[in-house]
Amino acid sequence: MSTAADPSAPRKRGRPRTAPDQSETRARLIRAGLAHLTERGYGATGVDDILRAAGVPKGSFYHHFGSKAAFGSALIAAYDSYFITVLDSAFDQTDLAPLDRLRAFTRRAEDGMARHGFRRGCLIGNLGQEMPTLPDSFRAELEQVLSGWQARTAACLAQAPGDLPRALDAAQLADLFWTGWEGAVLRARMVQGPAPLRAFAGSFFALTQGDSPQGRTR
Amino acid sequence: MSTAADPSAPRKRGRPRTAPDQSETRARLIRAGLAHLTERGYGATGVDDILRAAGVPKGSFYHHFGSKAAFGSALIAAYDSYFITVLDSAFDQTDLAPLDRLRAFTRRAEDGMARHGFRRGCLIGNLGQEMPTLPDSFRAELEQVLSGWQARTAACLAQAPGDLPRALDAAQLADLFWTGWEGAVLRARMVQGPAPLRAFAGSFFALTQGDSPQGRTR
Repeated sequence: MSTAADPSAPRKRGRPRTAPDQSETRARLIRAGLAHLTERGYGATGVDDILRAAGVPKGSFYHHFGSKAAFGSALIAAYDSYFITVLDSAFDQTDLAPLDRLRAFTRRAEDGMARHGFRRGCLIGNLGQEMPTLPDSFRAELEQVLSGWQARTAACLAQAPGDLPRALDAAQLADLFWTGWEGAVLRARMVQGPAPLRAFAGSFFALTQGDSPQGRTR
Repeated sequence: MSTAADPSAPRKRGRPRTAPDQSETRARLIRAGLAHLTERGYGATGVDDILRAAGVPKGSFYHHFGSKAAFGSALIAAYDSYFITVLDSAFDQTDLAPLDRLRAFTRRAEDGMARHGFRRGCLIGNLGQEMPTLPDSFRAELEQVLSGWQARTAACLAQAPGDLPRALDAAQLADLFWTGWEGAVLRARMVQGPAPLRAFAGSFFALTQGDSPQGRTR
C-alpha cells in the first residue's frame, strides 16, 4: 500500500522495445493478478482477464504458474512479501512509541486504499471470504500470512509493554488489531470511503492508549 | 443463528402433500438463497443453483423476484429481519448487564456458525466483500442493515453508561464491536473454527469491561 513497493502499480506504459524477459512476464502477471483479485476476487477473475490485463499469451501464464490455483498461491506469497515491507517500514520508526507506529501503519494503509478509490481490499481478507469456493490448500497459506503479520505486530508492541492496556498482552492486542482491521477494510470497501478505517483506528487506539498505566504520555 | 428463527434451516422433509402456496414457494427460495449466499457468495451462486436447492421452477423465481438482483435485495431484507430477532433476544435479557447481553449474542452467533461447520458467514459481510462486482444498489442496503444492528447495539449499551470504558461512548463502542465482529466472522470461516470469534470477544470484553469505572462488579 506504500508508493514504490506497490506490486500492483502499473509500470511504464506502452509496448516495451524489446520482448520482456521471463521474470518481467511473471512480474506483469503478478501485478495484474493482484489488481484483479484485491478488487473482484478469485472467483470473478478468469485467467483470460489476467492475460488481457498483463498483455501476455496464455502459454506464458501456464509456463509460469501451471494452473489458476498455483497462480493464486503465488499471489498470496507476493502480497505477503509486499505487505511485510509496508509493515516493517511503519514498525521501524523507532522514534515513535510502538502503538503510534501501528497507528502510522493504519494511515499508510488508508492512503493505499484511497489510491484505488477504496475498491481494492486486502487479498488475504478477500480470499478468506471466498474460502468455501477456493482450493483447500489456500486455507493454510492465508492463515500463515495473517499469523505472520500478527506476530510482527506483536513483536513491535512488546517493545513497550508498559504502554499496553492492563487487560491484554502484546499477542492478544495484535490479534484484536488484525481482526478489527480486516473488518474495517471490508467496511471501507462497502462504503467506498475511509470512515470505517478511521473509526476503527480511533476507537482501537483510544481504548488501548487511554487504558495503559502510562496513558498517552510518550 | 438461533434455532427456531433460522430462515435458512431446512423445513420438514419429503414432498408436501399439497402443492406449496405462493408464500411457501417464496420462503423456500429465500431459504435456499440464504444458505447459498452466506456460504458461497453472490457471484458464485447461479439462479439455477437456487432453483435446484429449492425445488422450484424458473418461472416461479421470476414471478416472485423479477431478477437475481431483486432476489439479492430480498435476501438482504430477510437476513436483516432474522438477525434483528437474534440480536433482540440477546439484548432483551435485562437480568444481564448490557455488555454481558452483547457477550451472550456472540455465543449464540458462534453456535449458529458451528451448526454449519463455520462455512457460512454473515450475508452482509460477504456481500460487502463482493461489492465491486455487485449491483450498486446493494451498497446502501448493506450499509443500512449494518447501521441498524449497530444502532440497536448502541441503544443496549447506553442503558448502563457507567459500565462503558471512559474512552468511548455507546455508539463508538457498538461501531468497534461490529467492525471487529465482521472481521472475526471472516477469520472464523478462514480457519473453519470458533477460535477467532472467541479471541475477538475475549479481548473486546476484557478491554471494555476491564476499563469501566465500575469494572466487572455487576
